[in-house]
Amino acid sequence: MANNLTAAFDIVADGSITTPRGFQAGGLHCGLKKTTRHDLGAIICEVPASAAGVYTTNVFQAAPILVTKDSIGEEGLLRGVIVNSGNANACTGKQGEADAFEMRAKFAEAIGVPAAHIAVASTGVIGENLKMDRVRDGIAKLPAKLAADVQGAADFNQAILTTDLVEKTACVRLELDGQVVHIAGAAKGSGMIHPNMATMLGFVTTDAAIGSAELTTLLRQATDLTFNMITVDGDTSTNDMLVAMASGLAGNATLTPAHPGWDAFAAGLRYVCEVLAKAIARDGEGATKLVEVQVRGAVSDDSAQAIAKTVIGSSLVKSAVFGADANWGRIIAAVGRAGQPVNPETVDIRLGDIVTLEQSRPIGFDEDAALEYLKGDTVVIHVDLHNGEGAATAWGCDLTYDYVRINAAYRT
Amino acid sequence: MANNLTAAFDIVADGSITTPRGFQAGGLHCGLKKTTRHDLGAIICEVPASAAGVYTTNVFQAAPILVTKDSIGEEGLLRGVIVNSGNANACTGKQGEADAFEMRAKFAEAIGVPAAHIAVASTGVIGENLKMDRVRDGIAKLPAKLAADVQGAADFNQAILTTDLVEKTACVRLELDGQVVHIAGAAKGSGMIHPNMATMLGFVTTDAAIGSAELTTLLRQATDLTFNMITVDGDTSTNDMLVAMASGLAGNATLTPAHPGWDAFAAGLRYVCEVLAKAIARDGEGATKLVEVQVRGAVSDDSAQAIAKTVIGSSLVKSAVFGADANWGRIIAAVGRAGQPVNPETVDIRLGDIVTLEQSRPIGFDEDAALEYLKGDTVVIHVDLHNGEGAATAWGCDLTYDYVRINAAYRT
Repeated sequence: MANNLTAAFDIVADGSITTPRGFQAGGLHCGLKKTTRHDLGAIICEVPASAAGVYTTNVFQAAPILVTKDSIGEEGLLRGVIVNSGNANACTGKQGEADAFEMRAKFAEAIGVPAAHIAVASTGVIGENLKMDRVRDGIAKLPAKLAADVQGAADFNQAILTTDLVEKTACVRLELDGQVVHIAGAAKGSGMIHPNMATMLGFVTTDAAIGSAELTTLLRQATDLTFNMITVDGDTSTNDMLVAMASGLAGNATLTPAHPGWDAFAAGLRYVCEVLAKAIARDGEGATKLVEVQVRGAVSDDSAQAIAKTVIGSSLVKSAVFGADANWGRIIAAVGRAGQPVNPETVDIRLGDIVTLEQSRPIGFDEDAALEYLKGDTVVIHVDLHNGEGAATAWGCDLTYDYVRINAAYRT
Repeated sequence: MANNLTAAFDIVADGSITTPRGFQAGGLHCGLKKTTRHDLGAIICEVPASAAGVYTTNVFQAAPILVTKDSIGEEGLLRGVIVNSGNANACTGKQGEADAFEMRAKFAEAIGVPAAHIAVASTGVIGENLKMDRVRDGIAKLPAKLAADVQGAADFNQAILTTDLVEKTACVRLELDGQVVHIAGAAKGSGMIHPNMATMLGFVTTDAAIGSAELTTLLRQATDLTFNMITVDGDTSTNDMLVAMASGLAGNATLTPAHPGWDAFAAGLRYVCEVLAKAIARDGEGATKLVEVQVRGAVSDDSAQAIAKTVIGSSLVKSAVFGADANWGRIIAAVGRAGQPVNPETVDIRLGDIVTLEQSRPIGFDEDAALEYLKGDTVVIHVDLHNGEGAATAWGCDLTYDYVRINAAYRT
């Protein structure tokens, strides 16, 4: 799919969230993290941007989720988003809500826009109230740190990380109505990553002209095929949020499904989301490699999705991949417990190009070649059910000693 | 619940699967395991025993499952069960089926009973055909190893283990119609343990007089509250099987729901299953402790079960318990993604007696006391939703470096 998608747009290798026209970004250290890394960041837009949000499905939704829903719900417009890391402001009661609304109000005031034009996002430890004195100080200093350049984007990217090891960004451009349109994104992941908006924050900027409703439609479609198809550990956080802002400054005719460039824009947006989602999976806590599961031949795409997610989420499969063990038995066991229609006689399994199971029967394969393949930094597991036309792809990572180390003492 | 249950029966501390009258057991090393531990075992009954089986829900069911269903399906009677470890005989095609049927036939012949009175169980690596020459040799030697004593039971218990570290057994007795009735069990677990009959083999013997249909009813009820409430890693194997045999030699009046001792027998059976299930959870691959999750105040027992299983299955919760980190935020996040009705304002969470969350608000607690509690070998997580009368208990274990080590190279 990815190859077909890229035909519609170009990848901007050195692009960032400040590449689309109208956006500035930045970050600083205000003291919420114990390290000296940035822990407060913002993206702002020089005009009211059409906005869209996708949120965690967890029953317990952190205070910032409430605030962002409120802001985007108002007019579908945003002038900016403020983000802190180091503290999730989740399960923090009325004080937490007050703090999140205060973050919105203070930042809106600092950049001179209406409060309802600001989104708020937080990530980090659950159940502790924000040190608001530090947040207030940080917000006061933040506007001076915002810039429309690569450094501003880099500072923002650092400010949203928790246990992430690398920054996650993507940028593409395409032509609409003779104008160059950019779509860019930045994201953080790391643990508690699972379908339906797991612990991740994602931010998409674009200079395309598109309404809030249309942007929401496309963002949800893209999310279902990308962010909702990754898992690190099956846990879904209270704070997940993906926010998109469209400045409209590219000058294209406003995008609707009737616009000839609709599909190309949708493909570009999906590509940006897919790059970010795969980067989150590859950088899952303790991960040493990206694992991709491609399921085809299922009775439907939904069924293929369920199977792909079950395989990618299996601790036994993940451990085997970490150990470079071609243990296809665990793969088929995961396929078989996904609760989906499967013909137990017709399943093929390949690891990369190495066929290990054909029509549900093990066939001899070169163990050395399999070991070599599984030692690589990307492992693709192909499952063909020969049971229909449904297909899906999911991404995850291996389960390692470091996952346990990181999560055995996250708070300390 | 457990305290109430034990009122109806006595625990037989030194009891085993050969304690109920009529049963012999044994085991030997035939060469399926690379170590010298036993890998072939059997339980036999001197009379045709009423039989019941509960099986894996995995779409891919190993050949022995097919054979055992066939045997119990015939007349609801068993004279014995033969079990091998070291090879699961799963995903082994027609040859695997033929091998499983041959195991049944050969063992039936060796002890002089009809083939359909023998159940077969296998556990170990998936996708490799059994070394049937070794199995045949082992079966020929096995009858001489069977005994009605503790040693016979111990040999059997060893023969069913894979990566298990300890043998898992339980035995109770109760009085029915003036006769002493025993119920005993043995089980193996270790990885791939999840609700709905995960990688486990369980064997229950009793000298109670009870029909196959009634035994099946009680075995399923007990399984739903015990074996189906444990998880090690969320994976469900192709081979899980719980088989019960009732010799009837205790001489009680045949048990039916109308018998005054029905509830007591059911309680005893459930207790045996609960002891085995908890032992499997505690001995989960790499586990250092047993984790028990008690959910109450849910809208229904089913809802409580779903929530308890989600919490017990959370890799983040499991890692935190391993690290003795009182990270209740991960517990509430797991509660919130269980897909069940939860009032986000009314949740209490306790770790043992240490209250960490009240009405969904964190309350200050003694971190040192929590650390001390979490360092113990049993951790009980209490979740009260204050949202109804539903309650459930689930068991699991912590996620450790050793889980990863064991599963990164299981086949090698």
